[in-house]
Amino acid sequence: MKRIESTQNSLVKHWKKLVTTRKERDKFAEFLVEGFHLTEEAVKKKSLIKSLIVREGVDIPEEWDVSDVPQYSVTAQVAKEISETEHSQGIFAHCAQPEFSEEEQQTWTKLLLIDAVQDPGNIGTMIRTALASGMDAVVLGKGCADPYNPKTVRSAQGSNFQIPVVKGDLAEWLPALKERSIPVYGTALLNATPVHEAESQEQFALLVGNEGSGVDPVLLQQTDQNLVVPLYGAAESLNVAVATGILLYSLVSKN
Amino acid sequence: MKRIESTQNSLVKHWKKLVTTRKERDKFAEFLVEGFHLTEEAVKKKSLIKSLIVREGVDIPEEWDVSDVPQYSVTAQVAKEISETEHSQGIFAHCAQPEFSEEEQQTWTKLLLIDAVQDPGNIGTMIRTALASGMDAVVLGKGCADPYNPKTVRSAQGSNFQIPVVKGDLAEWLPALKERSIPVYGTALLNATPVHEAESQEQFALLVGNEGSGVDPVLLQQTDQNLVVPLYGAAESLNVAVATGILLYSLVSKN
Repeated sequence: MKRIESTQNSLVKHWKKLVTTRKERDKFAEFLVEGFHLTEEAVKKKSLIKSLIVREGVDIPEEWDVSDVPQYSVTAQVAKEISETEHSQGIFAHCAQPEFSEEEQQTWTKLLLIDAVQDPGNIGTMIRTALASGMDAVVLGKGCADPYNPKTVRSAQGSNFQIPVVKGDLAEWLPALKERSIPVYGTALLNATPVHEAESQEQFALLVGNEGSGVDPVLLQQTDQNLVVPLYGAAESLNVAVATGILLYSLVSKN
Repeated sequence: MKRIESTQNSLVKHWKKLVTTRKERDKFAEFLVEGFHLTEEAVKKKSLIKSLIVREGVDIPEEWDVSDVPQYSVTAQVAKEISETEHSQGIFAHCAQPEFSEEEQQTWTKLLLIDAVQDPGNIGTMIRTALASGMDAVVLGKGCADPYNPKTVRSAQGSNFQIPVVKGDLAEWLPALKERSIPVYGTALLNATPVHEAESQEQFALLVGNEGSGVDPVLLQQTDQNLVVPLYGAAESLNVAVATGILLYSLVSKN
């Protein structure tokens, strides 16, 4: 295990930038996760791990199969430098962002498409919900928070290691799905079918949108049907991740 | 409009404590909301407003009916002192926490009961979801985050002004609901009915629990039926607010 004592070390600077800037994450197609739970989820997807980083005094659990993974022991000061939390557990995984071939993407038949959802916590919760409801993949359109932002990864609770998440142009995805005969459900407040009237589907894509303004109207014109979660009483709206959960669980086949 | 320039003013100190400590909120049964949207929601429930607080240079919208509400103009420094956000809009409402008589509580027939959910953001989102799904009230049991924590209020998006939220002992609420013949649905991972098999109900209570450990097993023994949101694939769990949304919308009568 190599030891790093200085916050000026170039690797430490790189890790810190991965935590704090999207630019660094995009440029290197890497990200950092923190804490025992997320690091363990990373360990299960070992092909993505570039290294494990452990604060002095913290033990790597014996049951983790990481003998062939580069490991760094760092001082408390270095751990603090790269931590995003107040009470760090002192364990991190430096990971590569997964990639998915065109061929693999063609096999996805249950998709969550997200247009311009800006809050990282919402994006993370939606990735977690997509995995739980049996989706094959999540596609993030323009204006979405970075799926590898530490806040996104924390909300996703490790689900981003289990379900493919790709960035893409939804204006291209929608006609491509239509060509593959996969129905696309949009979400809208007007001229929309109440979600409980929608029939469950073996394959479909659900398109949800921005916290304030919803799905881009230009995209909505390309959907097969638009759904709405009815609001009772004086309610003005639902949180977008909650609405997504209600919609996904209504659409997935119960058989 | 009275003017306050000093952060040492006793009212300013009280407002700040309402933002930062549950003790102050509980002792005075008051809370502070911030920003145009939440302050406007407070204005609609004018009986709860004790005063409006406005940073110099910020205008109260003309359409707000607040001529009979005490108003304070404060300096930028005072506004910063009582603000919880990075980019404050400089408008606040000092409010009383609403109270609900025993008699009124007896009229509630659709309830969300929450056991020990600790994250204020989750509690706020759940209050918002309860309102949207047509619940009559939310009951917060032991160990729940404060519904008047600024983070809770922000996540609730003003819904706490529209739906009654009370704190209570769930071990007393459950038998009282049973006596009124209102069915109580618990949530559990084992020995539970998949949520899509549950029938919609005209009146019911849904009991959800802690982010990590779920509902207290002692409480679960007092429910009529326990439900589960099925998890597909490698998913380990759902966010508790998302799960609550799926459960509530499955149970509410669609007629």
